[in-house]
This record gives sequence, C-alpha cells and structure tokens, in this order.
Amino acid sequence: MNIQSYLDSQRTRVDGFLEKVFLGNTLEPSVLYQSMRYSLLAGGKRIRPVLTIAAAQALGYDKDDMLPLAAALEFVHTYSLIHDDLPAMDDDDYRRGRLTNHKVYGEGMAILAGDGLLTMAFELCSLKENDVSFSYQQQLAIVRELAQGSGHQGMVGGQVMDIQAENQDIELSHLQRIHAYKTGRLIRAAVRIGGIIGEATPTQLECLSGYAEDIGLAFQVADDVLNMVGTREELGKNAGTDEKRGKKTYPTFLGVEGARQFGEQCVDRAIARLSEFGPSADPLRHIAIYIMARRT
Amino acid sequence: MNIQSYLDSQRTRVDGFLEKVFLGNTLEPSVLYQSMRYSLLAGGKRIRPVLTIAAAQALGYDKDDMLPLAAALEFVHTYSLIHDDLPAMDDDDYRRGRLTNHKVYGEGMAILAGDGLLTMAFELCSLKENDVSFSYQQQLAIVRELAQGSGHQGMVGGQVMDIQAENQDIELSHLQRIHAYKTGRLIRAAVRIGGIIGEATPTQLECLSGYAEDIGLAFQVADDVLNMVGTREELGKNAGTDEKRGKKTYPTFLGVEGARQFGEQCVDRAIARLSEFGPSADPLRHIAIYIMARRT
Repeated sequence: MNIQSYLDSQRTRVDGFLEKVFLGNTLEPSVLYQSMRYSLLAGGKRIRPVLTIAAAQALGYDKDDMLPLAAALEFVHTYSLIHDDLPAMDDDDYRRGRLTNHKVYGEGMAILAGDGLLTMAFELCSLKENDVSFSYQQQLAIVRELAQGSGHQGMVGGQVMDIQAENQDIELSHLQRIHAYKTGRLIRAAVRIGGIIGEATPTQLECLSGYAEDIGLAFQVADDVLNMVGTREELGKNAGTDEKRGKKTYPTFLGVEGARQFGEQCVDRAIARLSEFGPSADPLRHIAIYIMARRT
Repeated sequence: MNIQSYLDSQRTRVDGFLEKVFLGNTLEPSVLYQSMRYSLLAGGKRIRPVLTIAAAQALGYDKDDMLPLAAALEFVHTYSLIHDDLPAMDDDDYRRGRLTNHKVYGEGMAILAGDGLLTMAFELCSLKENDVSFSYQQQLAIVRELAQGSGHQGMVGGQVMDIQAENQDIELSHLQRIHAYKTGRLIRAAVRIGGIIGEATPTQLECLSGYAEDIGLAFQVADDVLNMVGTREELGKNAGTDEKRGKKTYPTFLGVEGARQFGEQCVDRAIARLSEFGPSADPLRHIAIYIMARRT
C-alpha cells in the first residue's frame, strides 16, 4: 500500500470533521472559538485520530460516525500543545510555522482555549445515540480511555515528570518512563479507542496496546532525532531546542544513529504485535514504519 | 430541617471521598498530586457536590456510589479556581485564606494541576461497573452534562465573556447572561447529574433544571453582594476586588439592597419549581434559602 496517500486521505477525512465542528456554534464569545480553531486547524498530521481510524479498520470498522471519537484525540493533543507553549511552560513563540496561540490571543485566552478543547473532547465522546451507532458501554469505555491516557496517570503526569527532569542527570530508563507517560499514553488511548470502536476482543485489545506502546516510543525517538538534526524550515518550529535547554533525549544517550536504530527496533516489535491480524491491519503496520521514516 | 447540620454532614461525606481519592496513587511525580490535593482539599463548601446529592435524594437515591460523580463537580470547580487565579487571568494571591496554587507550586504546575483535575473529573464519571451501580446510559449522560456545563457552551464560555466585559459598559441583561454561563451552567449540571443518578423523569429533570438556574443566579448575586460588603476575614480572600477592577456586578446596577431583593426573588422562584416534589426535596429547598443567607 501507498502509506502517504493513505495518510493524506485519512487526514483529509479528519480535517473535514474538524472544520465543521464549530460551524453550528453561534454562541458569543466568538474569540474563544477563533482561538480554539486557530490551534485546532493549524494543519497537523492528525496522527492520533488516524491511528484510531486505522485500528478500527484493522477490525473491519470504517464508518464515519467514528470521526467525533477520533477527533477527540486531536482536541486533547491540541490543548496540550497550547498549554505547553505558554510562557510558564516551554515559552515557545512558534508552532507548526505559525505564532503560538498565546502570542496571538494572549495568555488568558490560550489557557481557556486549552481548557475548552479538553472539555469538548469529552463532549465529543458522549454524543447522543442518534448521532453515533455505538453502545453506551463502548462510549463510556472510550471516555475512560481518553481520561486515563490524558490525565494524571497519562499525558499530564508525563508533562510534570518532564519538567522535573530538565537539567537533571537522569538515566535512559527514566527518560523512557517520562515518554511512556508524556506521549505514549495518549497514543495508546488513540489505538485502543479504535479497538473499542471495532469491538476488539480482550486479546486483540492487548495486541493493539502493545503495538501502540512500541510506536509511541518510536514516535518520541523520531521526534528527538528530528529536533537535533532537522532544520527550522522542515519542522515549522525552532530546531535544536532540546539541546539548548539541557534536555536529555534519546540521541543524548545513544547518539543520532544509535537512536535511529533503537527506533527501528521499536517499529519491528510493533509490527510483530499485529501477527494475529490480517491485511486489514496493513495501515497500522505502515504507520509504524512511517513514524521512523518521517522528516517532519 | 436544620440546613446547617445537613450541609455539614453532606460536606463531610464529600470530603471523606475527596481525601481518599489520591491515596491509591503511588505514581510519581508526587508534586502533581500535592498540587492537585492542595487546592482540592482547601476546605470549600462543596456546594456543587452537595447539590448533586440533594437532587438525587429528592428522587429517593442516597447510596455512596454517587460520591465519585458528585466529587467530579468539585474537581471541575477546583480546576477552574486554579486557572482563574493565574497571573494571566485574575492574578489572585489568596483563595480561601491560603496562598493560591501557583503561589505555592509555580505557574506551570498550577496549569497542569488544573488540567489534571479537569481530566480526572471525567475519569470519575467513567468508573467501571463493579465500582458503581449506574447504567452505562446514566454514566454517559452524566459525562455529557459535565462536559456541556463546564466547556465552551458553559463555564469556559462564561469565563471568556467575563474577561471581555471588564471595564466595558454592559447592561444588566448581559451581566445575567455572563453569569448564566460562568457559574450557572456548572450548578445546573450538578443538579441535573443528581437527577440522572436518581432516574428523574424528563419532567422532573426539567423542574430540577429550572430550580438550578434560579439558584445559580441567586448564588452569583450573593457572591457579588459579599464581595462588596464582606470583610477579608469573612471571605478568606480580598474583599471589594470587583469594584477595584471596574467590574460590573449586581450591586452596581441594583444597589446592595436591590441586589439582595432580586436574589430573594430567585430563591422564591427556585422553591416554586419544586412544587411537584415531596419532603424528600426539602434539602434542595433549604439550600436555595441558604444561598442568599450565607455570610461567606
């Protein structure tokens, strides 16, 4: 399969939903919607929602009513970027080649836009029965996955670990633990939510979880390598920022080539986890490869 | 009934749950839990969870397995206070007589503690079937109420309206609209969630919603009056802050006495909404009266 055209078409599908999502809202204050939309529609790769879709497809499900649930992952991811970029956190002025949310709308509005996006993610997961064809049990399990993946035992917990580790002399195992929470848990939630949508058996859900943990690791390794060797033009944000901040990364421990090799091993392991799945899981397999091969 | 002893006993019940909620968490980073607990256990009146309990009781439900759902309201309320107090928002140093979260833990951690509390509210609503006796349908409806009450069409939307109205020449009707969103929607969610717990009929849920809207208004009127006439000792935070910020409040439009009278009318209307309910709704009735009579 051509993974690039698969990713493009699924991203377009997700973007189509994201662009429509606020159209029905005529509520003032419109500046809140502008601020939420500004970051939501900043043109990311939509890798988390695409993982949700690909996992559901691996189980034979491909209806559009999963889009609100897939989009919920992007809402959570976007809110986390907005809050991360704040002066009190990473203090970044650029993101995906554009000014960060607080540089355009101010800090107070950026905090509220993030809060609004996070809350709306859960609203999307709890849509009424006439809008989606999933059971209450499925939807509630999805809410739980999303909350656990993004909260204190997931992404938010990892953020805090990450802040605490800056300028600390940490070991590789601790770095791995930070990333398992900071980026891994939300990626795992994305894949597992796709599994729940596709009514995975407990065994299938276990395989999908293992796959997600491995690609989550590869994803972070690739990010670290790109931050070190990429250019500002490629990344749409400043490169080399980790090094300047004295932040330990995979290349710090393993060198750029060693980190790449480690990432490739994660990809191989991820693909091996899917051995019970047929060709319907090919998108998941190719996404794993793509994650280490990407240049932006 | 003695409303003060009712409120004390229900608050103790809620506090008992809140104090235990993080005990099982041994996950580092412990500073995140300290920060979340610091604000969560700062000794509020727990009015929102108590409203949830009182609404469920009005329908004959009083089991302890509703406590996670009631507590979720307090998680959302607490996160909103932490984010509101940030320098980029209200820039408050004190809350309930203690330093605000960011004054103790720093701005970055305060933002993340708020994010963690908000996310955990939804985790509490999605607890597994062996922990609670509610149907998936009920739990999902509760997630939806909480998201709608606290998000862009609820509390967060109201926050933005409130920021935009500062130093603006707004009318009374606009002030009322701001408060309907900023504080009213979450109070309505609290009462409606109690209604869902108690399996309210659609008509009963409508009555409870009307009750909640009226007491939400009274609650804000009472807050504004207290901010104007209360002392720092009574409030545990600085008094007269609204006036200093040039913020329009009910007393600005109606005078202190006029505002009190308006609040009393809301209370009367709220009680009238409960005419179909028997004595089991007495706590709700007395809470309505208490809201305007309170001194802190």
